[in-house]
Amino acid sequence: MRPTFLFFALILLCINIGFAQDAKKDEDAFFIRKIYDQALTDGQSYKWLTHLTTGIGGRLAGSPQAAAAVEYTKQMLDTLGLDTVWLQPCMAPHWIRGEKEQVRIVNSNKMGTVELDALALGNSVGTGKYGITAEVIEVRSLDELEKLGRAKVEGKIVFFNRPMDPTQIRTFRAYGGAVDQRGVGPSRAGKLGAVAALVRSMTTRHDDVPHTGGTFYEEGTTKIPGVAISTNAANLLSRLLEEEPVRVFVRTTCKMFEPKLTYNVIGEIKGSEKPDEIIVVGGHLDSWDVGQGAHDDGSGCVQSMDVMYHLKQLNYRPKRTIRCVLFMNEENGLAGGRAYADESNKKGEFHMAAIESDSGGFSPRGFSADAEAEVFNEKYRKATSWLPLLEPYGLHFSKGGSGADISPLKSQKGLLFGLRPDSQRYFDYHHTHIDKIDAVNQRELELGAAAMTSLIYLLDKYGL
Amino acid sequence: MRPTFLFFALILLCINIGFAQDAKKDEDAFFIRKIYDQALTDGQSYKWLTHLTTGIGGRLAGSPQAAAAVEYTKQMLDTLGLDTVWLQPCMAPHWIRGEKEQVRIVNSNKMGTVELDALALGNSVGTGKYGITAEVIEVRSLDELEKLGRAKVEGKIVFFNRPMDPTQIRTFRAYGGAVDQRGVGPSRAGKLGAVAALVRSMTTRHDDVPHTGGTFYEEGTTKIPGVAISTNAANLLSRLLEEEPVRVFVRTTCKMFEPKLTYNVIGEIKGSEKPDEIIVVGGHLDSWDVGQGAHDDGSGCVQSMDVMYHLKQLNYRPKRTIRCVLFMNEENGLAGGRAYADESNKKGEFHMAAIESDSGGFSPRGFSADAEAEVFNEKYRKATSWLPLLEPYGLHFSKGGSGADISPLKSQKGLLFGLRPDSQRYFDYHHTHIDKIDAVNQRELELGAAAMTSLIYLLDKYGL
Repeated sequence: MRPTFLFFALILLCINIGFAQDAKKDEDAFFIRKIYDQALTDGQSYKWLTHLTTGIGGRLAGSPQAAAAVEYTKQMLDTLGLDTVWLQPCMAPHWIRGEKEQVRIVNSNKMGTVELDALALGNSVGTGKYGITAEVIEVRSLDELEKLGRAKVEGKIVFFNRPMDPTQIRTFRAYGGAVDQRGVGPSRAGKLGAVAALVRSMTTRHDDVPHTGGTFYEEGTTKIPGVAISTNAANLLSRLLEEEPVRVFVRTTCKMFEPKLTYNVIGEIKGSEKPDEIIVVGGHLDSWDVGQGAHDDGSGCVQSMDVMYHLKQLNYRPKRTIRCVLFMNEENGLAGGRAYADESNKKGEFHMAAIESDSGGFSPRGFSADAEAEVFNEKYRKATSWLPLLEPYGLHFSKGGSGADISPLKSQKGLLFGLRPDSQRYFDYHHTHIDKIDAVNQRELELGAAAMTSLIYLLDKYGL
Repeated sequence: MRPTFLFFALILLCINIGFAQDAKKDEDAFFIRKIYDQALTDGQSYKWLTHLTTGIGGRLAGSPQAAAAVEYTKQMLDTLGLDTVWLQPCMAPHWIRGEKEQVRIVNSNKMGTVELDALALGNSVGTGKYGITAEVIEVRSLDELEKLGRAKVEGKIVFFNRPMDPTQIRTFRAYGGAVDQRGVGPSRAGKLGAVAALVRSMTTRHDDVPHTGGTFYEEGTTKIPGVAISTNAANLLSRLLEEEPVRVFVRTTCKMFEPKLTYNVIGEIKGSEKPDEIIVVGGHLDSWDVGQGAHDDGSGCVQSMDVMYHLKQLNYRPKRTIRCVLFMNEENGLAGGRAYADESNKKGEFHMAAIESDSGGFSPRGFSADAEAEVFNEKYRKATSWLPLLEPYGLHFSKGGSGADISPLKSQKGLLFGLRPDSQRYFDYHHTHIDKIDAVNQRELELGAAAMTSLIYLLDKYGL
């Protein structure tokens, strides 16, 4: 064989590989375009979300609404022609808010008695039926509380008032920088002898809308009532505290009951070639009891269901096993996420990837990705190699957390993604009575489902 | 000088240049961070927009509300400490909608009489006080209309019913693909002897909200009334037309009056080093008469005003002249944009760059850029070299149109930008009675002002 021939043969080979790669890329671009066409003309998510929100409503784990949501979403998944749909039992905390919260400034010199918009924090104990009245002491951080010490805190109502930082471009960072006050503030205050805790609502808005959310008592601490007040109420209380000592009356009748049997809802398409490599897409089915849990996280659930619907409508037969998981009890315990990972680990399953949508049904801007350090770089590099296929749809990748429900799967050493929609409006609605269907835009919701379907297509086709 | 010394000297020089460039980049990153901090903690735009929308309302050129908007925004600009604030006169069409539109299907066999949600198109003639009743003929395009010809069109009401394509990711492309029906549909139908035209509303939503918008009569055509009907109404009418001939009654009393003297509102900071290189930031002050013109384009106006406010608050002294221009009559004539460019050309001014915000006050995703072909590439390359400074804020560049008001400046051979916010929700509200302040999110609005301020800082500092 003459070298010249070899040379030309090599050139031809290269050209062929080039063509094959281009053809593959074209095929992918074409299929993703089909996914978006399908999602934007035949999406079911908005219809499902309408029922989940206006038909069922707030769905706190253990509530009749949560049971209705389990039944409804299972019924809907049953219609999609998946290989298997099942319920996975778990025991979740059962907390009930009780009567409408009362929080008021009493007999101040400047303003007399002032009602404050408030919501008890989830998991909180109640005040007892006659409520609690005590002097308020304001702090901006857990550290500041510790420094005050028992002498200054005992017998008081501690008021945690550090705002979310409005200059953060991603509002979740602002949330992350403030939410310790809600999560463990009451517990820490109780440890120092406080009688109750007020927490500034987790939002950058200045309005009258109180935001609930989970609070958690650390072991061995005295449980004291925790209550969120609106940012306007927090600002008013803080201003008044600059002028004079302030006493506040708090009354909540919330209570934790015995854990309840409840369920994750799961639908699966079995992989045709590598059924043991599992890709999960999911959101959480429970929500807070106030409002309708439309963005948090009805959106993530119906988008995940729509991923399965779109794959079936497009006659896509996955190589790997694709599962839609609607997790229970993300808001006040994570029982569903833990039960799912526990059973999966027991069975020796391998989750090659998981995607969670739990940042609202807003216009998608990409995915964050997370994994065990030892496997992250290689897998992330592979995922980001698909960027040219996703950028035309406004999608980018970033490093960062995925989602609370899928995070227990991290030890299986797959790549975990969080759908990252535009975050500007999320904390207007988060954990409030205004998180309703009318805050969700159908196209934005459908684009999120399309984004996740597209990523799942690439994950399934190429692996990690 | 020994070569070795020269070699080291060169190396040192390179390192120094490297450091200097890094320092410059750090300085820019720092200043842009300051702009965002300022914009997200001290933005005035939402407050101004609240007055412009709930205090003044819809502001069609020639209306008392438009005059109020001119006065209000001039007063606000007067408070900012700019070098000059002035009104620039222009003559704008003066069109009045008149009484509430009536459009109904009359005496159909299947459905009897059905009211259709409708709005007269801007600039349209009225039907006369007794209205018009005629048989409806549906077309999907101007071409289809031409093919039907006078024989089939004469005496009929032409119904333009091509929907906006929901599979477009950028909704403005879907709008661009359908809006010819509204813009010249009635004119073309009139030319073929039609007695009126109905136009499907420009939105991908299926709802009862009619969307108005400008229609323009080509020279020498018989002017016939043009009316938009809601997408639900359009779908119903289309379904009925499949079953039977349909007659529709249309009554509008809208009318074009003599042009009115009105104004662009302009505020300027004179450049300290290159005052003859002008950078404009603007939006249009007029809006349709229905709704409050919140997204279209109150948002663009108050964002542009906020750019000036932020520059002043940050004590930024521009090298080049920065002008905020609130244009009049974008919606139904572009008199303001033309008057501004005409005067500028007469004075021999050079607009190095202009930015228009007229795509709603939604979360910004970047800028589109446009220029005369001969200068585009070099200027676009320079602008996109700033991308690393803007990407942390979710901003990207794309090629494409800028804004109607600044487009007449293109012949001055500067670079024209359009602020590109997320477009998913824009056509839910565009030209409707629901384009109100409650559809605008304060943070999203402020981020748009921050994005434009940042780009103006870079344009001013580095030129093009």
